[in-house]
Amino acid sequence: MPESPIRKLVPYSEKAYKAGKKVYHLNIGQPDIKTPQVALDAVKNNTLTTIEYSRSEGSEQYRTKIANYYHKNNIEVKHDDIIVTTGGSEALLFTFGSIMDTDDEIIIPEPFYANYNGFSTASGVNVVPVISKIEDNFALPPISEFEKLITPKTKAILICNPGNPTGYLYSKEEILQLAELVKKHDLFLIADEVYREFTYDGVQHHSIMSIDGLEDYAIMIDSVSKRYSMCGARIGCLVSKNKTVIKTALKFAQARLSPPTLAQIASEAALDTPQSYFDEVKSEYLGRRNTLIAELEKIDGVKIGVPKGAFYCIVELPIKNSDKFAQWLLEEFDIDKETVMVAPAAGFYSTPGVGLNQIRIAYVLNKESLIKAVTLLKEALKVYKD
Amino acid sequence: MPESPIRKLVPYSEKAYKAGKKVYHLNIGQPDIKTPQVALDAVKNNTLTTIEYSRSEGSEQYRTKIANYYHKNNIEVKHDDIIVTTGGSEALLFTFGSIMDTDDEIIIPEPFYANYNGFSTASGVNVVPVISKIEDNFALPPISEFEKLITPKTKAILICNPGNPTGYLYSKEEILQLAELVKKHDLFLIADEVYREFTYDGVQHHSIMSIDGLEDYAIMIDSVSKRYSMCGARIGCLVSKNKTVIKTALKFAQARLSPPTLAQIASEAALDTPQSYFDEVKSEYLGRRNTLIAELEKIDGVKIGVPKGAFYCIVELPIKNSDKFAQWLLEEFDIDKETVMVAPAAGFYSTPGVGLNQIRIAYVLNKESLIKAVTLLKEALKVYKD
Repeated sequence: MPESPIRKLVPYSEKAYKAGKKVYHLNIGQPDIKTPQVALDAVKNNTLTTIEYSRSEGSEQYRTKIANYYHKNNIEVKHDDIIVTTGGSEALLFTFGSIMDTDDEIIIPEPFYANYNGFSTASGVNVVPVISKIEDNFALPPISEFEKLITPKTKAILICNPGNPTGYLYSKEEILQLAELVKKHDLFLIADEVYREFTYDGVQHHSIMSIDGLEDYAIMIDSVSKRYSMCGARIGCLVSKNKTVIKTALKFAQARLSPPTLAQIASEAALDTPQSYFDEVKSEYLGRRNTLIAELEKIDGVKIGVPKGAFYCIVELPIKNSDKFAQWLLEEFDIDKETVMVAPAAGFYSTPGVGLNQIRIAYVLNKESLIKAVTLLKEALKVYKD
Repeated sequence: MPESPIRKLVPYSEKAYKAGKKVYHLNIGQPDIKTPQVALDAVKNNTLTTIEYSRSEGSEQYRTKIANYYHKNNIEVKHDDIIVTTGGSEALLFTFGSIMDTDDEIIIPEPFYANYNGFSTASGVNVVPVISKIEDNFALPPISEFEKLITPKTKAILICNPGNPTGYLYSKEEILQLAELVKKHDLFLIADEVYREFTYDGVQHHSIMSIDGLEDYAIMIDSVSKRYSMCGARIGCLVSKNKTVIKTALKFAQARLSPPTLAQIASEAALDTPQSYFDEVKSEYLGRRNTLIAELEKIDGVKIGVPKGAFYCIVELPIKNSDKFAQWLLEEFDIDKETVMVAPAAGFYSTPGVGLNQIRIAYVLNKESLIKAVTLLKEALKVYKD
């Protein structure tokens, strides 16, 4: 089981705290945004006297409401195309388990969300990376690069859209290219679309579920975690019009009995969150992104993968090894007892030796803290020696 | 992925409902007991404004309180011997993933909790059953029977104590025999002890965690589901003094980020449940068990595995195939529009052809309903033809 690239640094951050340092966290994806009041209230006002199992696939009422939410997002599915899961994590585990056997292969553009490695290991399947580049803002690699990697063991292609850790938002044309590819080679196309709402600069999100003719190939992963800032609820879902996929995934769902009941109450209520909440949140993240990019551009020798969605970006620094740099920031560096924690990007690549001089920044801090954190980064780079 | 033996009957129960029948459920383990008020109140009074991730292993505060609960149950562990999981289900998945590779083997006395099959399939490992018999109330099979099955691929022995579906409670001597066996062959001993509190007739539960010298071999699975009648919370834990096991399981825990936050609030509060709650619940189950056994003994040709714990028992009926019988009860039988649903026991056996004439009964109904349900079973057997 591979270790998360972010977790490796936790002992050093604990040392920094013990040394009395204030640490600005650019490394984690836990937003500081409040959960919608309607979701919090539903939990506080629940009238359960026994916290019973729910249906393994989630209640029909909740799934019907989810389908209605998708309808508003140009995704036409029915409640029985949906299995409610314990976070997007479990939706990925069920998907991997349902469509692949031991030693099968899944192609993923890298850098990718590091826990995809963990789910692959747990499912006994192998990740085959196809590299995307910071110079292109991590756009989809040419389809020919995918085709070079397809073997008889290849069962699926997985994208995260908008991307963690890249913030890249795939264009409709890119999604259509992938659709053609999976149909041609009879593969599944899995899209982790948990950051759907977080898009900037007027660009539109295109779901794989909206592509005609892709019904048998498309599997969408979703989650309430980031959308409603309720990461700790642990509610997600797996969506597919492929009946065999749903039927098999349901067996995994039944083996673990039920997704969490209290969190489903919160998640169902969250679907009634007013649009004003999202407008505010999106405007806040847009401001943060713009602040972050503006501040980063003040640093010499820095290359930025400009994000169009989600709340992450990959930054290339004028250093050799960001693992060592991140550790040094926590152990050796401070200005007035303040320092910054970043996620070394190598852990988001599957190919050894790639991304060594890159970090991932999560812009989940308020603007003032972001400016402070990037200033610390800038000053640190002035004195750091590889 | 194998299908749960209970789920197979769900379409027939739905047909029965549509035909206007009342169905007494002897087939499911969802207790009708109320969740402790202290747990319900903690959820209603929570003051979260953002439902954040918890630590992947559960909060130190909650794990410290769990360790204190174990101390009261003669189990001496520290908070860092514990990983909080999403139900006992996930604790089993993490355990299987942490101690076994693909194609490794785990020996389990059968009949066993059917979802063990699902977790084995999901982890790519093989269940090797060792048969226990209704004539012995499903006592531990002779150690020589286990030894016959041990191969270089055997990594662990798994017991459920008290047992689902048997209700059998292992004696201290049996636990010690298993301890010697696993030490001799360098195997893990996994005990699913989620029904610890549910023991009857003054017999005592003996945890594998209380055995001296078993520290490196013992892994305990636990859950709040049945103890506090909060199956839908989805909180359990994995407990071991083996640091390597905990370290590896933690990587699985980190890959799925966090157990559910709201449910941890309920579970932590549930640890303050007054003893009077358990006294009442245990007395209620004891009464139900005694009622069930007394009623079953009125039926000719029935053999009962008398349970000393949990709230299940296996019953042998004077029929050839309980799968067909259970289906017939739902489809063809009724008295005044009432019938009964039972779980065919064959699904709890791994060996083909065993247990075909047995059913599992969960005595989670009140006494009046139990009497009614068993009476229906008795009348049904009078008219049923294999």
